[in-house]
Amino acid sequence: MCIFCKIVNGEIPSYKVYEDDDILAFLDISQVTKGHTIVIPKKHVTNILDTDKETYLKVVDKVYDLANKIAKNLNASGVNILHNANEVAGQSVNHLHFHIIPRYSKDDSIKISFEDSEKQDMDQVLKQIKGE
Amino acid sequence: MCIFCKIVNGEIPSYKVYEDDDILAFLDISQVTKGHTIVIPKKHVTNILDTDKETYLKVVDKVYDLANKIAKNLNASGVNILHNANEVAGQSVNHLHFHIIPRYSKDDSIKISFEDSEKQDMDQVLKQIKGE
Repeated sequence: MCIFCKIVNGEIPSYKVYEDDDILAFLDISQVTKGHTIVIPKKHVTNILDTDKETYLKVVDKVYDLANKIAKNLNASGVNILHNANEVAGQSVNHLHFHIIPRYSKDDSIKISFEDSEKQDMDQVLKQIKGE
Repeated sequence: MCIFCKIVNGEIPSYKVYEDDDILAFLDISQVTKGHTIVIPKKHVTNILDTDKETYLKVVDKVYDLANKIAKNLNASGVNILHNANEVAGQSVNHLHFHIIPRYSKDDSIKISFEDSEKQDMDQVLKQIKGE
């Protein structure tokens, strides 16, 4: 069974940052930075590519509130908001979740790097996205 | 003047993926992967820590639609959704933007790594977030 569903059900304990009927937010057990928080819907859905918009919007609405609260109360200098959809993108638990990662220094243990970018035929990419 | 405001105003050309009265989405000029798209509000706001919720929600609503459309039409295997708030978090243009990064392979040129995580006193972190 899904580990985040177990956290929702209370089978696995968690450090709850926020909870309502639809949403749970808890400290990531691996605190990449102090206050690193996971926001999930209680309902099991996989990710942004496989959920109804209503559930997604409830999650991102709460991400806004919590990102601001966490950054303020922990005196962070910034924050990253990250959602990984599917294994290829680094999703490790197949239950929709957003990371809120408060930042204090560029030397924090999270590294996001855009390496050599790929040359693309931009007009062709645009056509393909638009289904033309 | 803000480079994204110049794109909104048409002073700088862009490959527009989507546009309405409030939102603009365009191909990132550095395509970290094929279809890498930036979603912004036309109104100049800085980031999630410094914007009204209404503007934020308009952006993330469109992020949902476009992430699904882009992944489907480009046959991506997954997607990353990323928002960087403030320079410490890697924000390079001070106009609120979300990255939609379609993923095709783990060997794509984007690397997101959570390195050695920090040991935290979880109860203490929770208290501080809650302002207790």
